[in-house]
Amino acid sequence: MGKLSEFEPIFYPKSVAVVGVSANEEKAGNRFLRVMTEFGFKGKLYPINSDTNEILGLKAYPSLRHVPEPVDLVNVNAPARSVPQIIEDCVANGARAAEIFTAGFSEASEDGRRLEDEIVRLAKGRLRIIGPNCFGVYCPRGGLTLLPGPKYPKESGSVAVISQSGGWVTDFIWAGSGHGLRFSKVISYGNACDLNETDFLEYLATDPETKVIAAYMEGVKDGKRFFELAKSLLGKKPLIIWKGGLSETGKRAVDSHTGSLAGERVVWEGFFKQTGAVMADGFEELLDTTAIFSHFPHGAGRRVAVVGGGGGVGVAASDICERVGLKIPASSPEVMERLRAILPPVGTSVRNPVDVGAPMVPSPLFQEVLEILLSWDGIDTLLIDRMFFYGIPQLVGAPDTDTEKRVEVLTNVAAGTRKPILAVLGELSSGIDMIDIEVGRRETRQRFREAGIFTLPSIHRAAKALSNLCYYYETALPRNR
Amino acid sequence: MGKLSEFEPIFYPKSVAVVGVSANEEKAGNRFLRVMTEFGFKGKLYPINSDTNEILGLKAYPSLRHVPEPVDLVNVNAPARSVPQIIEDCVANGARAAEIFTAGFSEASEDGRRLEDEIVRLAKGRLRIIGPNCFGVYCPRGGLTLLPGPKYPKESGSVAVISQSGGWVTDFIWAGSGHGLRFSKVISYGNACDLNETDFLEYLATDPETKVIAAYMEGVKDGKRFFELAKSLLGKKPLIIWKGGLSETGKRAVDSHTGSLAGERVVWEGFFKQTGAVMADGFEELLDTTAIFSHFPHGAGRRVAVVGGGGGVGVAASDICERVGLKIPASSPEVMERLRAILPPVGTSVRNPVDVGAPMVPSPLFQEVLEILLSWDGIDTLLIDRMFFYGIPQLVGAPDTDTEKRVEVLTNVAAGTRKPILAVLGELSSGIDMIDIEVGRRETRQRFREAGIFTLPSIHRAAKALSNLCYYYETALPRNR
Repeated sequence: MGKLSEFEPIFYPKSVAVVGVSANEEKAGNRFLRVMTEFGFKGKLYPINSDTNEILGLKAYPSLRHVPEPVDLVNVNAPARSVPQIIEDCVANGARAAEIFTAGFSEASEDGRRLEDEIVRLAKGRLRIIGPNCFGVYCPRGGLTLLPGPKYPKESGSVAVISQSGGWVTDFIWAGSGHGLRFSKVISYGNACDLNETDFLEYLATDPETKVIAAYMEGVKDGKRFFELAKSLLGKKPLIIWKGGLSETGKRAVDSHTGSLAGERVVWEGFFKQTGAVMADGFEELLDTTAIFSHFPHGAGRRVAVVGGGGGVGVAASDICERVGLKIPASSPEVMERLRAILPPVGTSVRNPVDVGAPMVPSPLFQEVLEILLSWDGIDTLLIDRMFFYGIPQLVGAPDTDTEKRVEVLTNVAAGTRKPILAVLGELSSGIDMIDIEVGRRETRQRFREAGIFTLPSIHRAAKALSNLCYYYETALPRNR
Repeated sequence: MGKLSEFEPIFYPKSVAVVGVSANEEKAGNRFLRVMTEFGFKGKLYPINSDTNEILGLKAYPSLRHVPEPVDLVNVNAPARSVPQIIEDCVANGARAAEIFTAGFSEASEDGRRLEDEIVRLAKGRLRIIGPNCFGVYCPRGGLTLLPGPKYPKESGSVAVISQSGGWVTDFIWAGSGHGLRFSKVISYGNACDLNETDFLEYLATDPETKVIAAYMEGVKDGKRFFELAKSLLGKKPLIIWKGGLSETGKRAVDSHTGSLAGERVVWEGFFKQTGAVMADGFEELLDTTAIFSHFPHGAGRRVAVVGGGGGVGVAASDICERVGLKIPASSPEVMERLRAILPPVGTSVRNPVDVGAPMVPSPLFQEVLEILLSWDGIDTLLIDRMFFYGIPQLVGAPDTDTEKRVEVLTNVAAGTRKPILAVLGELSSGIDMIDIEVGRRETRQRFREAGIFTLPSIHRAAKALSNLCYYYETALPRNR
């Protein structure tokens, strides 16, 4: 268990030493040093290297024992066998914490396990360890990034991530930041020989910056404490977990990867049921679900009105929404009457899902449809698909008469409602020659996001993320059901 | 039932008349005429309009009765109530077929149903009808396109699509062509008052251009014949069906959309089981599955070797592969030994899934790993994830030392094997400012495609598509299992 004060030098270090850094730019230590500089770390950086006086313009020290002040965080890239000595040096320096990127410990062999035990023994009560076999910490407010991360967002945000896989973490930050996520703390904790998932979760539970917690986990060190903590988070901060290794083949892969005990599927299902933590099935679902929680901090309801540009949209939305437990109530007589009064009589449908006939409907009509549906108290949430053809001129060969206006209409309508709105922005064309359409899609997505509208690239992903969101708030606040 | 000769004027018309075409560029008839011209239709185009002598530089005729020759295909955009008269004119002209875009028939009301019955009666034995309430036909070899489709590929291909939704068809052509699909015939058939899904399927079964058939269906007009035909296709041409409206909510949406009888889920499950048609769950899966069938016409086997840049990849691949019925056999002792001899001892795994440690491994090492796995007779198919970081310079802030070489390695290796290779090319960053990375992804995807390597954007989508491919060939050729 970590005391809160012990995390301060990890996330907001005033000084970082890099051990195992050479002048070779290809090596991890050198790259980490460069990446920290580029990212704009404001504290002191101490390269540790006995062969040179200077690396990347920074004064180098032969060992941690020569550094003139106790450092907050030591980044370790040196070979596994040298790590015990480095930990002794850390202790001698008075360092507060070390993030050990080096692999080759308990995940690799019995020798590695002994080495890991030794560093734990040497550090115990003196400094805290993240890793080994990890990517370390990204905390933009602390000016701290991980490899490879010079281009990660420098703005801070409300999403925390803990992960046993460094690879998934780096992808998550990249993909997530494109989707508008910003992060408070991201921690790749690897073998978790000292600080483990539960320690970080405990810190994040009280971290005022963190509102949503996403996790990729292969195993748990301290099941009981993790369970209690996850349970205590319910109703306070959503915890979304992608649990890797729930299959038999996956368990074998977990053993090779982090040496964790993957656990039985039935145990994990019980965990999710009893804690209210949200189960995400894979990378995309973890991303989508984290994003929707971050976007709609007050949750959403399951009764959905669907607006589609074409009847096939409504059919697809109906099938997937029903499967994931969302409701598409039939329009009330009043709603039907009001829609019938404005929609063309043929090629449309006034029942919910509402089919406005085609994506290219006039924007005033689109606006009226949205307003009628949003004012209907039979629904909680609005879902829109196939209404924004950002690449229309290029795809259709016709001028873009009204798409832009429909985007405007939706952003205006969103400003006047408290009901969550989701818009599917599908990947209409993915040819290289049509990259402008992708640019248009990303711009529209950003405009929607700024207007409070949540977007995903397919109706399947949108429905699943929405259902996860509803599930959490129903579990946390059962009276609101 | 349609005779084969009756389809000739539909797919390869020598002349097309457009009825319901005005000088107003916003109207569908005008747009269709323009789109056909832009698409490069080589036959005669006859605009039919009694108010003007010329539309878009083409001589206009007051009615079909004034056209100096019998036309092959009549495109009808006129209001529903005028369609019976137009059909009479078609008959008088000696026209062979009509595609009726107009909606407002049996899907809309009882009056509409009577109107539809009337046009069927008038056309019976005289001309064939596609629609009404449809988008018509796209057949690049015939120079024929549909709305909106001036930018659809002009090259012909081996994929045929039949669909009850015009919207999904247009999206499918756009998205599919970006993914490398090319089409033989695409038919949006709407209400299918005359030619229906089974008629088109019968034609496509014998069409030498068509190798793979994709379908979006909400209902079936002639269940028994469709069943027999689907069954007869097994082992000849894969038939992949996305069946819309399998849920209760979906059935209601189907009723509003095409007025079809959606049918019970259990009946459709029986259909798929007994015919060997492949069931696709939604738009993306229809697209992915069609693409993989088109890409690997000889099928693939379920025993998969996975190569990942990082251990989390292997865990994710294991979980999803097991769920969809793919096998990831543990490496044989010989394979393990050979991999162990070349891979770094820590941070990697020589068991299958094989973890090479990180995406940025040296290309010669990557090549050796691929060659060892491909020469192993314990696996049929190779699946690679998280090895190609096309945006490395931008994301990592380091020069792109070896990604390009790894792409080369894989394309070379693919040339020397008959085992199918799939590579996941994930959407690494989706920010507007990182559009270059998306360009890199699309370029890599195209290079891979040309080298015979199949790509999809996620391990989930790749595994599902591969499993669908395996399922079909196992069902069609059970002795090869």
